[in-house]
Amino acid sequence: MSVALIVLAAGKGTRMQSDLPKVLHPIAHAPMLWHALRAGQVLEPEKTVVVAGHGADLVEASCKDYDPEIEIALQTEQLGTGHAVAQAREALAGFEGDALVLYGDTPFIDENTLQRMTEARQTHDVVVLGFEAADPGRYGRLVTENETLLRIVEFKDANETERAITLCNSGVVAAKADVLFDLIDAVDNNNASGEYYLTDIVGIARERGLSATVVRCDEAETLGVNSRPELAAAEALFQTKAREALIENGVTLLAPDTVFLSWDTVIGRDAEVEQNVVFAPGVTVESGARIRAFSHLEGAHVSRGAIIGPYARLRPGAELAENTHVGNFVEIKNAVLHEGAKANHLTYIGDAEVGEKTNIGAGTITCNYDGVFKHKTTIGKQAFIGSNTMLVAPVTIGDEAMTASGSVVTEDVPDGALALGRSKQVNKPNLAQKLFAKLRAQKARKQA
Amino acid sequence: MSVALIVLAAGKGTRMQSDLPKVLHPIAHAPMLWHALRAGQVLEPEKTVVVAGHGADLVEASCKDYDPEIEIALQTEQLGTGHAVAQAREALAGFEGDALVLYGDTPFIDENTLQRMTEARQTHDVVVLGFEAADPGRYGRLVTENETLLRIVEFKDANETERAITLCNSGVVAAKADVLFDLIDAVDNNNASGEYYLTDIVGIARERGLSATVVRCDEAETLGVNSRPELAAAEALFQTKAREALIENGVTLLAPDTVFLSWDTVIGRDAEVEQNVVFAPGVTVESGARIRAFSHLEGAHVSRGAIIGPYARLRPGAELAENTHVGNFVEIKNAVLHEGAKANHLTYIGDAEVGEKTNIGAGTITCNYDGVFKHKTTIGKQAFIGSNTMLVAPVTIGDEAMTASGSVVTEDVPDGALALGRSKQVNKPNLAQKLFAKLRAQKARKQA
Amino acid sequence: MSVALIVLAAGKGTRMQSDLPKVLHPIAHAPMLWHALRAGQVLEPEKTVVVAGHGADLVEASCKDYDPEIEIALQTEQLGTGHAVAQAREALAGFEGDALVLYGDTPFIDENTLQRMTEARQTHDVVVLGFEAADPGRYGRLVTENETLLRIVEFKDANETERAITLCNSGVVAAKADVLFDLIDAVDNNNASGEYYLTDIVGIARERGLSATVVRCDEAETLGVNSRPELAAAEALFQTKAREALIENGVTLLAPDTVFLSWDTVIGRDAEVEQNVVFAPGVTVESGARIRAFSHLEGAHVSRGAIIGPYARLRPGAELAENTHVGNFVEIKNAVLHEGAKANHLTYIGDAEVGEKTNIGAGTITCNYDGVFKHKTTIGKQAFIGSNTMLVAPVTIGDEAMTASGSVVTEDVPDGALALGRSKQVNKPNLAQKLFAKLRAQKARKQA
Repeated sequence: MSVALIVLAAGKGTRMQSDLPKVLHPIAHAPMLWHALRAGQVLEPEKTVVVAGHGADLVEASCKDYDPEIEIALQTEQLGTGHAVAQAREALAGFEGDALVLYGDTPFIDENTLQRMTEARQTHDVVVLGFEAADPGRYGRLVTENETLLRIVEFKDANETERAITLCNSGVVAAKADVLFDLIDAVDNNNASGEYYLTDIVGIARERGLSATVVRCDEAETLGVNSRPELAAAEALFQTKAREALIENGVTLLAPDTVFLSWDTVIGRDAEVEQNVVFAPGVTVESGARIRAFSHLEGAHVSRGAIIGPYARLRPGAELAENTHVGNFVEIKNAVLHEGAKANHLTYIGDAEVGEKTNIGAGTITCNYDGVFKHKTTIGKQAFIGSNTMLVAPVTIGDEAMTASGSVVTEDVPDGALALGRSKQVNKPNLAQKLFAKLRAQKARKQA
Repeated sequence: MSVALIVLAAGKGTRMQSDLPKVLHPIAHAPMLWHALRAGQVLEPEKTVVVAGHGADLVEASCKDYDPEIEIALQTEQLGTGHAVAQAREALAGFEGDALVLYGDTPFIDENTLQRMTEARQTHDVVVLGFEAADPGRYGRLVTENETLLRIVEFKDANETERAITLCNSGVVAAKADVLFDLIDAVDNNNASGEYYLTDIVGIARERGLSATVVRCDEAETLGVNSRPELAAAEALFQTKAREALIENGVTLLAPDTVFLSWDTVIGRDAEVEQNVVFAPGVTVESGARIRAFSHLEGAHVSRGAIIGPYARLRPGAELAENTHVGNFVEIKNAVLHEGAKANHLTYIGDAEVGEKTNIGAGTITCNYDGVFKHKTTIGKQAFIGSNTMLVAPVTIGDEAMTASGSVVTEDVPDGALALGRSKQVNKPNLAQKLFAKLRAQKARKQA
Repeated sequence: MSVALIVLAAGKGTRMQSDLPKVLHPIAHAPMLWHALRAGQVLEPEKTVVVAGHGADLVEASCKDYDPEIEIALQTEQLGTGHAVAQAREALAGFEGDALVLYGDTPFIDENTLQRMTEARQTHDVVVLGFEAADPGRYGRLVTENETLLRIVEFKDANETERAITLCNSGVVAAKADVLFDLIDAVDNNNASGEYYLTDIVGIARERGLSATVVRCDEAETLGVNSRPELAAAEALFQTKAREALIENGVTLLAPDTVFLSWDTVIGRDAEVEQNVVFAPGVTVESGARIRAFSHLEGAHVSRGAIIGPYARLRPGAELAENTHVGNFVEIKNAVLHEGAKANHLTYIGDAEVGEKTNIGAGTITCNYDGVFKHKTTIGKQAFIGSNTMLVAPVTIGDEAMTASGSVVTEDVPDGALALGRSKQVNKPNLAQKLFAKLRAQKARKQA
């Protein structure tokens, strides 16, 4: 059956002490809302409706960044979770599949858990996600009989027997969309908070003779983020889980705690990552590549057999083909290095293309900026760029061409040619000695 | 009432296995003594007397570094804490305010705690700082009745009832200075160690009809440092506390455990610090600045909107104005970058001034050293320094001036002028191919 | 008595999910087998026999790398530990000393433990290494009476009284070589696994009237590695132990958790290591040297008083004499820097020798590679290499010689001479202004 996601994202997040809406605070460089949206992708949802309220414009813009097809439903007043879900009714008018309610501030929900919920939906009208709480505290309790969910009791309304239950309510719910909205219509706000609670739909469903069940997940998946310290803890938890997932998938991390990943980092089996490596967003590393210590990668693609670092800075648009080598204080931005190309010392390559097996000497710089515009440098294959060559873009260096070290190259170099742009060396005998003597004498006078 | 600090710093610290006096071992780049002195600043002390003994010359020099007005009292023999405090009598002759006794090897005492002590002094003659010990062990016990302190019992003299007390003595004491010295006069050394104990003053005070009370602090504040492992633990504790304090104050730390702070690091609200950043002493970062990964800062000032790093090395005298950008293997020493100036790749700027909105190209170096003297480079505003320009100081580059990439600039460049200092490029057709062929033939011969 | 080591290394390590034989997986950059071999060195073994099976060719090659005199015994079928030890019989034919059986997948065995075993051998015929297990689980139990070892009982054969024993069998055994092989001859495979167990020799020895005893070690020493997560845990344990050992030996580590060591890293007393430093194999740092933050060292020797980093990259063959300074994005490879030489900014020194007190300016590069061959650069003492000098090797710079900044030096420079190789600066008045105006006009047109 087709699925629609309803993601609640209207809360202000007062405890975050920030103008940014709570669900847009980042974890691993993505708004926490995106983490929930990504988990939902596993269900291949036909529609996704995000219910926005506080900072709705910002939330909408962020959603469109994630996927332009996401629809936004506005909740202008915050009258409870049931009321929030009701705002999605119009966007889902005529939709005949299942609706799954997720939360924008609950970023760790697992894909498998959501799949198990949709499976459970095939045999029950309402499915609620629950978890065994280590410390149930003031969570709502799930009252069950075998696997049938009888009702959800809020902590404050629970009697002693119910308070002893450790199976708690996560708030995540699945039901056929029209059933969900019908049930919500019956929810009232006759309670202490004066809010419409989504959880009330379970009791109403049972009264109407519908079936309800619980799917269980790990408590950690239901972790919510409401304050700065909780955000910091969520960041740490993401990093721990992401590192463990890489190791399980056969990536070697020499010192896992020193590797920092982004929400979208992809690293292939048998790749190796050394100590102190930062993956900013947009990085893909293929199997068998090696990322050495003290490297920083962002928006880059690293192919098999490539060796990156130590001290490599890959910026957006860095495309490193197979068996390329880049490291030792080298920065690559918006540039393709074709198979076997090397840039191994003190180099800046920006807005460039470097051909197969070309060697870029130490200290080479693509002078890509004239103060106003950026220009491109194109280097052929099997070329040899001498140390400290300035490649003043736009400029093209041919295949098997060479530049003499210390040259400033402002004009194209044909295939097979050698470009020279430097003065001849002159040795002035004894001049260094005289200069040293003079300077030392000055120093002696100063000190006197 | 005015306050004088008496800081005990005479101990040898045998267990440190070092020639350096114990109180001079550093925590977060400052002698641990300075941490105690700094906490005491909150009381705006009229006088500070440090009682020195082992390595007194070194201790005195370190104190004078911290504050030239600190007075040193010599304790030539180590006859106990009471005897140590007595050495401060002369320096405080005629002083009519309160005296507070602190310890140079107890660096974590909190400012608020000291303020609470001086407040308590307004209603009691003697104030002792106590703490609830998780494991009271052999600490002295504070015998109290309501908030009245009856006496301090050393562990070895305590009976079973007294040993059951968990409120322990930190050794920190406040009293009116003349009262303190009078009480110490009455302390004897009739005990197992043959030492004059400062703690004995409480019993004597009570006998004389003076009042005494306890102020309580967290046990962690009383942590003493007596060995290398304890020093390492103190360093770790300092880092943890300092990171937490930054986060509480609204600084974003992407990975708190990888950020290392100095005793005097100041970072403003809403600044962001990425992974693996080291703050050596003397750094101030303003609100809203961003310090990116793998940066190392020392003696530097970073203004609002500045972006530093990744891989930025700021050395003493680096002054980064608003919206400056510095990073990607760039080192700045004793140099001012005015608003909006940028140096983003492989650059060394030392002993220099760089004007507003000036762009420093990749590979630029201020050649500030002639082998004996250092010289200054001055660059105007909205200038454009081409890649790999050598600025041979002393030299001045005018406003809106430009240097061609690869130029060695030895003479001043007027406003609006372009400086060129490079050879014209010559292409030698087919010469690269010939050279490659020759080298490969040599290689083949060698391998044969 | 002379000692022979028998190291069992034939297992496949199925759970490692790798083609590499288990004992060759690295911990701290050395095959875990090497760690066991190194521990055994303390006994100055006359012979070392490694019993190889799965991947025997690779294991043999790795052993020969470690020590060409190691002998390999092949175990073509894996029929149990007793059978494995029996394969060493031929290699030890005629050997009259003690044999000690170690395991290639137990890398944390301590040297002192092995010494205690050989000492115990002087008074007992068979010595077994045991440990008090926190959770004895399914380990074999050592049944003792006083310090006499009566027998080893496998868990599954143990009765309740025996299962209550917490002293467990590590598998490490010492006996006179001929006695060991005689005992193994008597071992049968009448058990559930159909294997020949080495541990059965204890019962047989006792039946024959030989004496047996237990030497106890810490449980952590017996840690085996059987899976990727266990390998990761072993790496972490190695790092923790190695850092603690350095601190105990008087090395200052500012942030121990951020320093990564190799199996063979040597650092002298009173050396200081800052945050985020990686020691790849082959590094020796002498007393009193200082390794600053963000440095990466491999195959390098650092002498007293040298200051390395921050951001220093020392590669194999880097030899830094006393009081040398290297840092701030500087890479050194296969080069000697003599006493007091300095290279402090953005420099690459490869295949070179740098004389005493010579100063290498910022941006200097030894152009050591012509595309096919590597060549050497030799610089004399007290020379001054100006910033951004290209030293095109092979080339020699004399004592007290100087190069002008921005020079490309292709020919030798005599002692005391100044080498110049650059164009004279020309200032074009107002040209920068005109260029800026033109570019801005272009930009305005484009945007229109």
